[in-house]
Amino acid sequence: MEKIFERLQKVKSIAPLIHHITNYVTVRDCADITKCFGASPVMADAIEEVQEMANIANALVLNIGTLNSNIIESMKVAGKQANKKQIPVVLDICGVGATSFRNNKAKELLSSIKITVLKGNVSEIAAIAGFETQTKGVDAGSVETNIIELAKGLATKLNVVVVITGAEDIVSNGKDTYIVKNGCAKMGNIVGTGCMSSSIVGTFCAIEKDYALACVSALVCFEIVAELAQKEAIGLGTFKLKLFDKVSSLNESVINEMKNFTLI
Amino acid sequence: MEKIFERLQKVKSIAPLIHHITNYVTVRDCADITKCFGASPVMADAIEEVQEMANIANALVLNIGTLNSNIIESMKVAGKQANKKQIPVVLDICGVGATSFRNNKAKELLSSIKITVLKGNVSEIAAIAGFETQTKGVDAGSVETNIIELAKGLATKLNVVVVITGAEDIVSNGKDTYIVKNGCAKMGNIVGTGCMSSSIVGTFCAIEKDYALACVSALVCFEIVAELAQKEAIGLGTFKLKLFDKVSSLNESVINEMKNFTLI
Amino acid sequence: MEKIFERLQKVKSIAPLIHHITNYVTVRDCADITKCFGASPVMADAIEEVQEMANIANALVLNIGTLNSNIIESMKVAGKQANKKQIPVVLDICGVGATSFRNNKAKELLSSIKITVLKGNVSEIAAIAGFETQTKGVDAGSVETNIIELAKGLATKLNVVVVITGAEDIVSNGKDTYIVKNGCAKMGNIVGTGCMSSSIVGTFCAIEKDYALACVSALVCFEIVAELAQKEAIGLGTFKLKLFDKVSSLNESVINEMKNFTLI
Repeated sequence: MEKIFERLQKVKSIAPLIHHITNYVTVRDCADITKCFGASPVMADAIEEVQEMANIANALVLNIGTLNSNIIESMKVAGKQANKKQIPVVLDICGVGATSFRNNKAKELLSSIKITVLKGNVSEIAAIAGFETQTKGVDAGSVETNIIELAKGLATKLNVVVVITGAEDIVSNGKDTYIVKNGCAKMGNIVGTGCMSSSIVGTFCAIEKDYALACVSALVCFEIVAELAQKEAIGLGTFKLKLFDKVSSLNESVINEMKNFTLI
Repeated sequence: MEKIFERLQKVKSIAPLIHHITNYVTVRDCADITKCFGASPVMADAIEEVQEMANIANALVLNIGTLNSNIIESMKVAGKQANKKQIPVVLDICGVGATSFRNNKAKELLSSIKITVLKGNVSEIAAIAGFETQTKGVDAGSVETNIIELAKGLATKLNVVVVITGAEDIVSNGKDTYIVKNGCAKMGNIVGTGCMSSSIVGTFCAIEKDYALACVSALVCFEIVAELAQKEAIGLGTFKLKLFDKVSSLNESVINEMKNFTLI
Repeated sequence: MEKIFERLQKVKSIAPLIHHITNYVTVRDCADITKCFGASPVMADAIEEVQEMANIANALVLNIGTLNSNIIESMKVAGKQANKKQIPVVLDICGVGATSFRNNKAKELLSSIKITVLKGNVSEIAAIAGFETQTKGVDAGSVETNIIELAKGLATKLNVVVVITGAEDIVSNGKDTYIVKNGCAKMGNIVGTGCMSSSIVGTFCAIEKDYALACVSALVCFEIVAELAQKEAIGLGTFKLKLFDKVSSLNESVINEMKNFTLI
């Protein structure tokens, strides 16, 4: 059952603590959008404190956008504590497919932590699934495959929820597979929308144990915000600004009217 | 005597260099707001250069928001040079109370550098004072104590100016204690206002040797800006943007009309 | 021959991948502006992956704003691969003249990589040329010298294109020297315009082999954007926002009408 607005309300009333270990490019965007949704973001990556921070958190969001060896070790420590605490762990495999270092480190994380949600664009997810592909830095490259089968297959194989973002997003836990059609072209024209949506995914997973539905709810909400922002945006700067403004416009009627996703 | 506008003018005419060793989340906000006030921000944390950078600076701002062991060592080196040069050192104990690593490193800094201004929200300051408390990541947790007595007592004990930020801010050097009532609720709804106010505190301390008054002046100015921003803000994105726009609206009559603080 | 608009079109149609190893203060601004111009930014500094990332990139932008020893080593590895691949390398010597660490590391980069474009403000370039000067953190200090001769001489000596930014920018490859008069005062009042212009310089160098003309084209475009932004800006926050909005206003007639540079 879909209860997107109820989940959004639950985020606001609980204000979950979302521990991020993320990149230094979009980190402020991630903190800002998490806060706008009513959750409490904390960014902490020192290996001496990530276990303790993950222990007081309600979800852990890992993003390898500007990874290095030290940060990967911190991710493992935080991730293991998250597993022990049984809080959800979102892994955004930003840039996988661009370098073998990213590919290897992403696989290391997948084998050493129980990941809840594995998220990326199509060439990132294809690369982790073993397809021959080339991610263009952190932007999607072209991939020839059936992305619904890709999501379903990988979700089953890894026992995670797979989220593939793009013009249409795919969310699959292997059994249930959703297509989210909200969103707008401008999202791909600015930096940070992928990372921000991972923060929102982590936020909703903190309050909803059906993680596929949590992901769908997060994507629908964030992408409705983007559609509202695009309507008023006169350029890319204003569009980004309005992403933060328009979160407060999400109410029950707006969500019910604008939500656009299907279970297939 | 309060001469807030004169101090603001002095910042503009001197354009002090404010050396920051700070977190990677709000670092751009800190640089932007410092620049908007007419000072010159520089962010430098490599241990090989922080002594030289602190040596040409007019104030040093330390913020442990995304601390790690290397950065703490750089803070110590920069801090010692600042002490030698007799320039003010502001320490924002961002996130203290959330992990023992933060607690320990904050105490290490306090014992190895002569800090001028110790700044945090109520649960951070309570944690450093030895109260049992729990900071929620970098957001304030609940603390049951008389915060005025907390500020006064800690200021006397550590021989620093203590600044506790919140709906009302407390500034105390142990003898003089001020309550600053400027500010608005939206400040707590976005990321970075605490860090930015530390930058402004450092900026005013660079040009005013009565550090308690410098802190009050900084908080009053920044929080008037926030009040002006809130009046025109339609959402959290716009509110943050207008924080930078409205600095230029600070003139003598606006400050005199809107300033709201008392010496108790 | 000047064909600024054609170059801008070429950026959009090719969408070059611009690999940045840069500072953590303005990194998001650099990513955003690169994306606004239609190129694809990637920020990656781990020594394990920079060779591979530079290998798929169309230009490399190095900025030492928040340098440390590890990042300098990564810059060398990336730079050597860029040289091997024969893609342009832009070096922004942010803050040189402020500390001997910066001076030394900038010289190390110049001696170990073949730099295509060396870029800085007047006190940074004067410092690297061996003049006695003092950079104020990352802001320009005063220098008494003929800056045109400084640019020409250094370009010849180092066999690079030298770009000196300021109220008027100088671009010289030793033979051809240009003065770019576009831009506006507000550019110096906010943080990040220098770093962003380095990203745009790298972007244009990725698609134009006459690197001096590529630099001129980049500066003219970015500074026209700044002039358009200033016309509508009510404060420094709005000005920065509109830098991103106004990139889409760059068309052939706007560029031809507003471009303001001379070959001397």
